[in-house]
Amino acid sequence: MLSKVPIALAVLLSISPSFALWPAPRQITTGSTALKLSPGFKITTTGIKNVPSDLTDAITRTLNFIANDQLQALVVDRGASSAGVVKTAKSLSSLTLSLKSTGTVKSISEEAILPLESRVEGYTLVIPADGSAATLQANSTLGLFRGLTTFGQVWYELNGNAYTLQAPFHIVDSPAFPYRGFMLDTARNFFPISDIKRTLDAMSWVKINTFHWHVVDSQSFPLVVPGFTELSAKGAYNAQSTYSPADVKDLVAYAAARGIDVIAEIDTPGHTAAIAQSHPEHIACPDATPWSQFANEPPAGQLRLANPATVNFTSNLLVSAASLFQSSYFSTGGDEINANCYTSDAQTQAELSAQGTTVDGALNTFAQHIHGALRSVGKTAVVWEEMLLAHSVDLDKSTLVMVWISSDDVAAVVQQGYKVIHTSSDVFYLDCGAGGWVGQNVLGNSWCDPFKTWQISYAFDPLANLTTDQQDLIVGGQHLLWTEQSGPANLDSIVWPRAASSAEVFWSGPGGNGDTALPRLHDISYRFRQRGVNAISLQPEWCALRPGACDLNA
Amino acid sequence: MLSKVPIALAVLLSISPSFALWPAPRQITTGSTALKLSPGFKITTTGIKNVPSDLTDAITRTLNFIANDQLQALVVDRGASSAGVVKTAKSLSSLTLSLKSTGTVKSISEEAILPLESRVEGYTLVIPADGSAATLQANSTLGLFRGLTTFGQVWYELNGNAYTLQAPFHIVDSPAFPYRGFMLDTARNFFPISDIKRTLDAMSWVKINTFHWHVVDSQSFPLVVPGFTELSAKGAYNAQSTYSPADVKDLVAYAAARGIDVIAEIDTPGHTAAIAQSHPEHIACPDATPWSQFANEPPAGQLRLANPATVNFTSNLLVSAASLFQSSYFSTGGDEINANCYTSDAQTQAELSAQGTTVDGALNTFAQHIHGALRSVGKTAVVWEEMLLAHSVDLDKSTLVMVWISSDDVAAVVQQGYKVIHTSSDVFYLDCGAGGWVGQNVLGNSWCDPFKTWQISYAFDPLANLTTDQQDLIVGGQHLLWTEQSGPANLDSIVWPRAASSAEVFWSGPGGNGDTALPRLHDISYRFRQRGVNAISLQPEWCALRPGACDLNA
Repeated sequence: MLSKVPIALAVLLSISPSFALWPAPRQITTGSTALKLSPGFKITTTGIKNVPSDLTDAITRTLNFIANDQLQALVVDRGASSAGVVKTAKSLSSLTLSLKSTGTVKSISEEAILPLESRVEGYTLVIPADGSAATLQANSTLGLFRGLTTFGQVWYELNGNAYTLQAPFHIVDSPAFPYRGFMLDTARNFFPISDIKRTLDAMSWVKINTFHWHVVDSQSFPLVVPGFTELSAKGAYNAQSTYSPADVKDLVAYAAARGIDVIAEIDTPGHTAAIAQSHPEHIACPDATPWSQFANEPPAGQLRLANPATVNFTSNLLVSAASLFQSSYFSTGGDEINANCYTSDAQTQAELSAQGTTVDGALNTFAQHIHGALRSVGKTAVVWEEMLLAHSVDLDKSTLVMVWISSDDVAAVVQQGYKVIHTSSDVFYLDCGAGGWVGQNVLGNSWCDPFKTWQISYAFDPLANLTTDQQDLIVGGQHLLWTEQSGPANLDSIVWPRAASSAEVFWSGPGGNGDTALPRLHDISYRFRQRGVNAISLQPEWCALRPGACDLNA
Repeated sequence: MLSKVPIALAVLLSISPSFALWPAPRQITTGSTALKLSPGFKITTTGIKNVPSDLTDAITRTLNFIANDQLQALVVDRGASSAGVVKTAKSLSSLTLSLKSTGTVKSISEEAILPLESRVEGYTLVIPADGSAATLQANSTLGLFRGLTTFGQVWYELNGNAYTLQAPFHIVDSPAFPYRGFMLDTARNFFPISDIKRTLDAMSWVKINTFHWHVVDSQSFPLVVPGFTELSAKGAYNAQSTYSPADVKDLVAYAAARGIDVIAEIDTPGHTAAIAQSHPEHIACPDATPWSQFANEPPAGQLRLANPATVNFTSNLLVSAASLFQSSYFSTGGDEINANCYTSDAQTQAELSAQGTTVDGALNTFAQHIHGALRSVGKTAVVWEEMLLAHSVDLDKSTLVMVWISSDDVAAVVQQGYKVIHTSSDVFYLDCGAGGWVGQNVLGNSWCDPFKTWQISYAFDPLANLTTDQQDLIVGGQHLLWTEQSGPANLDSIVWPRAASSAEVFWSGPGGNGDTALPRLHDISYRFRQRGVNAISLQPEWCALRPGACDLNA
């Protein structure tokens, strides 16, 4: 695993706050020379045999972004006073990509889905100030892709020129943490593939490398699973609100070409009421009321975890669903198991009694089965923290444990030697603070009030209070969007630019870079909007054009 | 003024919760007969000489909405089980509009901008169950427009038919309060005309009749004012981020044709730092730092209220700006005047001393001048509450006072006999709850936390704790969007459907209609999205299709 200590973030403190790289590179030196792209600017490769088509596509996208972003510098005159300097600046004619390694060239798509410990994302980007060719070197095409993303953030627009005032650049970059994700819930409300693709694009622009897809839940089952098509036929909101195997294949390929692995989740044994629509025999307490006694959200319903037929059904379902995805990982969920649901289910009580076990005992057996089934097809399990902390399930040490209830729970997971992904509700939940969504709740707040600002997540230290050995178990983290009060209408605005803050925390490492964060994040918002993603304004434009002027004590 | 007591809201309680009228009509009876629109369905007028073109346009828009909304009923099967009933239902061939009065026919646009006490918005809509012609009668074309809006909400779509299951309808409707508004701040961040037009459309769909346009502020001055074009030339964010007189004329006409009066605001004497860009001679403490000692937000700067030249300049500016708008009202603002700004300004101190007066004394003189100037061109002043409550300005009793600091302040305003518009931050501020926006404020909440849910505003009683005489002074109310953290990217999602909740409170009257509100508001969100306005989801679709199933105790 790569070093997690930020190496040269302090360098950024001394440079122009309009400097727009996000996440901040881990080693960077810049100058103060103007440089523009020549009209015939090209991105080429050298020494790469059989250039993968997804790398060629990424080059094309990078050129298109540079041509179309048309983002003026975020200063009061939007760069106008630099017109003379830009006019006489030297021109950069080319950026040349090369691989340091000499082995077989893999595609970005192949490298994006490698196991986390095998993923190589580092790169070295050199942009000389004298107009001589810029170079981008990496040990992987995935690294080249990350470097292209950085290159695309260097340029502002003025009078038809793409320019920077900060040449030369020397950047040696690689992520502090291998897992940098974003989670979307497509079960509370449905999101068309086009919305997810736009989100994947945006994720790639800030080097997020994992899409954690909470694809189904108790409210709806939009995933069409081969051999289990009745689940979506009866459990989706409607026939149009589904993800077919072809949709998934297309989405997984789209993500991988952008350096993103898709980890799907079928939450078990809770959050499965939708399965009752087609398989009532597998669900305890379906639609039981009052729902609040049987589930954290309506409708109630959990898999009959002590029923061998249900365990078998679940294993087969997960294996079939997992076959739709290329990732090495698959999430089996495991959060918010409601004890009362099983207490109220005569069948489950009879089965527990016959087996002489408890719910936790049965859950352990259930987990061994489904995780074993996934392991047999090459998939490592991902779970929510309760599986370990609340139910003491005997998990394989390869399991990725997502800590969501509180960041305070991280210590207990690493103390047991398990890998952690930071997904804490007190830091990374994008839905908090919008008020209660259950009906007849006139003055209700959201359960995880207040709103989680970008500042809260940006200030988060993923390694706080951990020993060096424990720190090695921190795999990364992510923002999450649960969609009780969200849909396509507010996807962009509730996610961006906030989700970029965790992207920097887990790429650039803890410690952050407070003085330049807000100006650079403004740049992200403005650039995202230029690219068609509706990131919100974090401040009045007056503030965005005057870095620091709206600070509390300015 | 019309009666503010809801007459027959209780009737709604007994009807299908999928029934989608918003705001709830004040008198309504419905049946349980299916009725569909015939393929050749027409909306005609009878007895109206010289039908105004904006009424003809409104009819065309209504027909287009009915044809294009394609909104399926929000029930689990989306209406499919009614297919047989709809197939055999009687067909409605026409809706006929007529005016009860026989005087000169005015256009919607003319009636929308009348003084509030002269505005007539009531209508009677009858849709028989037997397929005979539906009728819409009113005393005004504005009333006919409101009735058309209601008619457009009656229909769901199934198998190519626009249908209702609840014929016959008999609706006698009129607003409880004459002022039902929405305020947008276009100074913290700029909004293109197209965004405002889309918002005006959405406002008209829920019978909001006033657009309170907080058009300029300290951060930017986008309004191009004839004779004062230097203000926007130097004070707008850029040349594109301006509203030209032609833009304003177009927007005012667009609004009026949709039954909406545009009340512009040029906030004085505070919130005027942008004027210093072109007229530094008129501004005290421009850009003074630390800003928090001189203003509630950066940048600091207030009009030199004791300077006769500045008073004259302001009067002329307001008169010229007011000439761009057709409304009988113009807001001169008056909030958040910072005493320290004037204390620090030697010129103001000298002028106060020479005049032997105080800031409040000078403010009174200032207000008499600018309000008198507006009165001389036929405009009634609108002010924020501090003018009366904090500074005891001697306001004309015609002045509309907006209470924003707290709804508790309403009593003090009506006790002095002034008219009130409810704009309270504790109820109607759409921006609350998104965290602090000033920089370096890592854990800051928004100043008016928490988030103001639709439930909070919907539960608000505009007449609470007031005597009958005082109740007559309540003119209406509105939601407000201050845009420190908003822009075009999240305009729809932060405003809708929340702003519809005040639209119902001030149309249907206090007391609300709790049991049907959430299902009907879901309908508004779904219908708005069908019409291109990105209203958010208030709950998982599972809940939206099952009215009441996600209530707290369901």
